[in-house]
Amino acid sequence: MSQLQRITINPQQLQENQLLLTPQQQHYLLRVLRLRDGDQFIAMNGMGKWWLTKLQGTRGEILEILEVKTELPVSITLMMALPKGNGFDEVIRCCTELGVTSIAPVLSDRSLLNPSSQKLERWRRIASESAEQSERAVIPTILEPVAFKTAINENTASHSYICEARGDYPHLKQVINNANTASEIIIAIGPEGGWTDQELEIAVKSGFVAISLGCRILRAVTAPIVAISLIAANFELSP
Amino acid sequence: MSQLQRITINPQQLQENQLLLTPQQQHYLLRVLRLRDGDQFIAMNGMGKWWLTKLQGTRGEILEILEVKTELPVSITLMMALPKGNGFDEVIRCCTELGVTSIAPVLSDRSLLNPSSQKLERWRRIASESAEQSERAVIPTILEPVAFKTAINENTASHSYICEARGDYPHLKQVINNANTASEIIIAIGPEGGWTDQELEIAVKSGFVAISLGCRILRAVTAPIVAISLIAANFELSP
Repeated sequence: MSQLQRITINPQQLQENQLLLTPQQQHYLLRVLRLRDGDQFIAMNGMGKWWLTKLQGTRGEILEILEVKTELPVSITLMMALPKGNGFDEVIRCCTELGVTSIAPVLSDRSLLNPSSQKLERWRRIASESAEQSERAVIPTILEPVAFKTAINENTASHSYICEARGDYPHLKQVINNANTASEIIIAIGPEGGWTDQELEIAVKSGFVAISLGCRILRAVTAPIVAISLIAANFELSP
Repeated sequence: MSQLQRITINPQQLQENQLLLTPQQQHYLLRVLRLRDGDQFIAMNGMGKWWLTKLQGTRGEILEILEVKTELPVSITLMMALPKGNGFDEVIRCCTELGVTSIAPVLSDRSLLNPSSQKLERWRRIASESAEQSERAVIPTILEPVAFKTAINENTASHSYICEARGDYPHLKQVINNANTASEIIIAIGPEGGWTDQELEIAVKSGFVAISLGCRILRAVTAPIVAISLIAANFELSP
């Protein structure tokens, strides 16, 4: 079942048991995947639901609702200072695979890049594709970039962490091991060169716990993958 | 101290307290980094030693041996089926940052790419640069690619694991948590499409324990980063 092809749909495309396919979806299913009438695929709404669907001309016939068990029992937000170049693409791809719930790009003192709206669209497309490939039920939300201080002030998660490359902080693994009852986690990862002292101070004053990812220096694009790996593993349900 | 620039040297370049710099190293220190006589840098041999060094013309004067505490107290080998494209470059980069000891590329039933010798040189250069940047004392060894079955037969690690994307296997996090006394760990990660049933069977017969990295499907290039993150975090010394 899970080997079937998956496409993401809008709720508006569903009318009773019929799925109205967009021209792009028709092209993808018929020309790219070469499915034929009667072939099955999975339609996902990116918000937790999968439907087993049968291709019928320009429509899909919903056969049944599928139970998806690939989501973590915790909401994880990655707050990340935008790295240089295209590094953020790979971060979104990997962290989506790993089960992140939302990604909040922030502008920090050492990364003042203000990305274009095309970038945001691109990131959302990557999150959607990566969710399909990794067989997730939920597509992570990619938020609009805001200033780090705004993001810190608006944070309401019960468990908030901020990574520091240098300094004498407890390892995320130990800290997260004591947070088993958490329902909402946010983790902030700095840009190349790290957070400034002032940024770290503001975060800690707002309730963020400073943590380490180990004693080697990680690149800005590696750190989020490591952090989300450790958090996801801590909350993963047994098979 | 750790903010000083680092270069990798050959043991033969050391003569008593003098470091004979190669033309490439002279170019890098003088032209690229713009160091001047009397400026300090760190020379590392990639096998556990760092020396604080002072630039003197075309030589370095060794000032003292530095104690490096960035290595894990366990030897970790990543055995990995070669992924398509340039994905292996990023795997080497990330896993070096994370503390891997050696990387063994293997040819599997679903990845028969036989890389050129230039590729191997390139991978070793990436490992060296990544070790410098992440402030490691040891440069991971990149082995010559061999057939998966050969690599399995030659494995002598006390703790051997093989990742499977699908199936009912225990999570690496739980398994590694019970391996705290391990001194040598090897973890095998498959190519796109995974190991064949036969490969998995051979590995398990040779003592590899099949494990899961969670219930979402990871790309071949994400899986090793996740696996090494979890192993490294388990063995990381407290700060």
